[in-house]
Amino acid sequence: MSKIRVAVIGAHGRMGSEAVKAVGAADDLELVAALGRGDKLETLTEAGAQVAVELTHPDSVMGNLEFCVTNGIHAVVGTTGWTDDRLATLKGRLDSAPGTGVLIAPNFGIGAVLTMRFAQQAARFFESVEVVELHHPGKADAPSGTAVRTAQLIARARREAGLGDQPDATTTALEGARGADVDGVPVHAVRLRGLVAHQEVLFGDAGEIFTLRHDSMNRSSFMPGVLLGVRRIVSAPGLTFGLENFMDLD
Amino acid sequence: MSKIRVAVIGAHGRMGSEAVKAVGAADDLELVAALGRGDKLETLTEAGAQVAVELTHPDSVMGNLEFCVTNGIHAVVGTTGWTDDRLATLKGRLDSAPGTGVLIAPNFGIGAVLTMRFAQQAARFFESVEVVELHHPGKADAPSGTAVRTAQLIARARREAGLGDQPDATTTALEGARGADVDGVPVHAVRLRGLVAHQEVLFGDAGEIFTLRHDSMNRSSFMPGVLLGVRRIVSAPGLTFGLENFMDLD
Amino acid sequence: MSKIRVAVIGAHGRMGSEAVKAVGAADDLELVAALGRGDKLETLTEAGAQVAVELTHPDSVMGNLEFCVTNGIHAVVGTTGWTDDRLATLKGRLDSAPGTGVLIAPNFGIGAVLTMRFAQQAARFFESVEVVELHHPGKADAPSGTAVRTAQLIARARREAGLGDQPDATTTALEGARGADVDGVPVHAVRLRGLVAHQEVLFGDAGEIFTLRHDSMNRSSFMPGVLLGVRRIVSAPGLTFGLENFMDLD
Amino acid sequence: MSKIRVAVIGAHGRMGSEAVKAVGAADDLELVAALGRGDKLETLTEAGAQVAVELTHPDSVMGNLEFCVTNGIHAVVGTTGWTDDRLATLKGRLDSAPGTGVLIAPNFGIGAVLTMRFAQQAARFFESVEVVELHHPGKADAPSGTAVRTAQLIARARREAGLGDQPDATTTALEGARGADVDGVPVHAVRLRGLVAHQEVLFGDAGEIFTLRHDSMNRSSFMPGVLLGVRRIVSAPGLTFGLENFMDLD
Repeated sequence: MSKIRVAVIGAHGRMGSEAVKAVGAADDLELVAALGRGDKLETLTEAGAQVAVELTHPDSVMGNLEFCVTNGIHAVVGTTGWTDDRLATLKGRLDSAPGTGVLIAPNFGIGAVLTMRFAQQAARFFESVEVVELHHPGKADAPSGTAVRTAQLIARARREAGLGDQPDATTTALEGARGADVDGVPVHAVRLRGLVAHQEVLFGDAGEIFTLRHDSMNRSSFMPGVLLGVRRIVSAPGLTFGLENFMDLD
Repeated sequence: MSKIRVAVIGAHGRMGSEAVKAVGAADDLELVAALGRGDKLETLTEAGAQVAVELTHPDSVMGNLEFCVTNGIHAVVGTTGWTDDRLATLKGRLDSAPGTGVLIAPNFGIGAVLTMRFAQQAARFFESVEVVELHHPGKADAPSGTAVRTAQLIARARREAGLGDQPDATTTALEGARGADVDGVPVHAVRLRGLVAHQEVLFGDAGEIFTLRHDSMNRSSFMPGVLLGVRRIVSAPGLTFGLENFMDLD
Repeated sequence: MSKIRVAVIGAHGRMGSEAVKAVGAADDLELVAALGRGDKLETLTEAGAQVAVELTHPDSVMGNLEFCVTNGIHAVVGTTGWTDDRLATLKGRLDSAPGTGVLIAPNFGIGAVLTMRFAQQAARFFESVEVVELHHPGKADAPSGTAVRTAQLIARARREAGLGDQPDATTTALEGARGADVDGVPVHAVRLRGLVAHQEVLFGDAGEIFTLRHDSMNRSSFMPGVLLGVRRIVSAPGLTFGLENFMDLD
Repeated sequence: MSKIRVAVIGAHGRMGSEAVKAVGAADDLELVAALGRGDKLETLTEAGAQVAVELTHPDSVMGNLEFCVTNGIHAVVGTTGWTDDRLATLKGRLDSAPGTGVLIAPNFGIGAVLTMRFAQQAARFFESVEVVELHHPGKADAPSGTAVRTAQLIARARREAGLGDQPDATTTALEGARGADVDGVPVHAVRLRGLVAHQEVLFGDAGEIFTLRHDSMNRSSFMPGVLLGVRRIVSAPGLTFGLENFMDLD
């Protein structure tokens, strides 16, 4: 089987350099170009790239993707900053390039995507649910964006299932003890030297507890997700938003 | 909305008495009969039961279900001992009673069912996976049947995804240290005074760990699953095997 | 070896009835009396009790102990409500009964006592520490008294070791996300149907995390502590406050 | 306060290079020499080192320590391979250098040392105990040396407390399910891609579970222990074996 020819745009960044290594180490992929700041996009076509992994900056992503789509190069995108306007623009371009696919993934961590997905599915079966995220003490926001999004997805699933408020007989509390309230789901943020990025979703009902936990030790944990995206985008024309769409979870 | 009229067969057993309480406490269900050993099945028709919860013994379950199906009473069955022959017999009877439904559930624990289901779905994304089950020291078998079944489902999902053997550089090991081998998935059984029934499925890949954990504290944990079965069987004619079919997990 | 002759005062309460069972089941103890409300204290002397397990109410504990100490009966006390005044009174009585011992234990849970003790000892070795307690949703206070006391003991140990504030770069937080602040130690309270009483103390430093966890499933978990107290009080004259003093942890 | 003058021997090894960084970053320590293979030991005296951190190889450690002790330089030693003969030789040398101290530490991980110490102390209070260690799949031995040593310490503490066999009603088991038997303590070894080095000690008794867990993410986790050794060895003449002796755990 011939290898998929892959380029990395943003190859010298923290994620990009991991992607260069991961593509290089995969038997079924061939790294044909690694572009840094200032490198010309024409390198992609000259190298015959079939898929571009785009890990740059909101300022440059639209230009990079325009070039890719125009030239029939599929793209796997980790760069953030997507608005409805930007998505509409991108979709318009893809309409004119019917065989080409773009995957935009807010999170390439397979464990993180599974946690969110399973949390959403489990939500309607349990009377109680809380989220505990644990990170290194250098993190600026509390709770993490992933924890907030997880709680929102859970809250929506509860509403759709007709579940009411969670049981909680607390009458005397120290301020903050019961966590942050995200759409009715308590979220707790722990900060400890030595941690990296961890999240637990705890569900409870009469006599049983069900827990999902994800531990991410370093940036290499995103690479299986990036590679999965590369392998699937070649046969998924159009715009795909979210890695879960390539994970066959149904 | 009128309440579903529910009977419990085997109402004085350990599971049955929990079921009597749980049905009695549910706003949308009405307990119309509670049959113990020696009580006549005709009580079910006299009481106008729509659904029978069958929690007896392999010796009596076939007779009880024959009566139910013949009289158009749906059944939710926790009694074990199902062979292919028995299932075929039951299916034959249901063919002659087109509106009637029977749910047989080897496990009514929603957390246990979710653990198995999610473990199966997650399996193909991780290079490594092991199962650790933890129970009270009075348990006779190790590993638990649920852990063995979970490992088998994971092993099958790995095979279907084309995953090979798990990485393991062990060259020197004390006997038993690496657990039991269930189709290539190591399973460890912990026995501690004070535990009830617990299971962890640990998945690992480069830089990340994803864990499913289920803690079952007592028999009441099976009741949400029994009630879910009761609510769904009234509109699910024919034979359904496994609670997961009523959990809309796709 | 002759058995220790034990009486239970408050034998019909929730703790007391557990104590009656636990004493009865212990090979080296003999249950000689079980007093409920209204029973005469003279029963203790008539039955030849050597140790009384006192599990009643702040209103009756002082009278009960006066009787015990006067009659040379050792006591193991779980009843709460101890003020400095009450302790002084009790000490005065014990001074006049030199061979007799009284153990007052705010917590008979051996795991809880170990968690507090070890947390105190570990505190000075780690830059970061947080407490997460998890209870059933019927609990009125958040955090639990045990969690608050654990955090206070940790905070004191940190001060004594000259440790400063914990590292925390949080600049944007949802209210409550970072928990309650107990003397500089964040404490998080989780409430879930299906939980009983659980506590985690998480310590972190460069590259490592150290965790103490205690899970209490039911009231029987206090009985090993009660029995330990009974066995030790017969050779520990005077007043002992806290089960840890009988645990030889040094 | 003047800084302690510290040298690192074996400064280019994996542990040594971490030690160079850690000493350099500590406010109360000054790195005065960093010796690699072939560097002359006289550098230590020329640089005025007060403490040498010895992280080399069993072949060179005796010569290095002879030089240090002769010259009144305290040593903190992570190199392994200590036999009774070697220890006797070292003690002899220290007898002739009364003010000088040497710390030999088989494990500088503070969390690991605490886990072993607390496990030993907790052992006699619980009917059941098992050890679960979890490591990356490149590890050659199972269980880990630390887990075996922890189990041995627990087994000894149980014997000394007169505890008998652990309760275990297992009659049907898959081979290996119940782990390795280390002096009567079951030890389970989990191997997963993505893990580093982790250990859990689970104690159980009626109605309660007490757990110690240690997660070591990388080699930097040993540095707080190395620095603790450096700070304490200057006032601890003679031979000290084991970091726990400097941790004031009594």
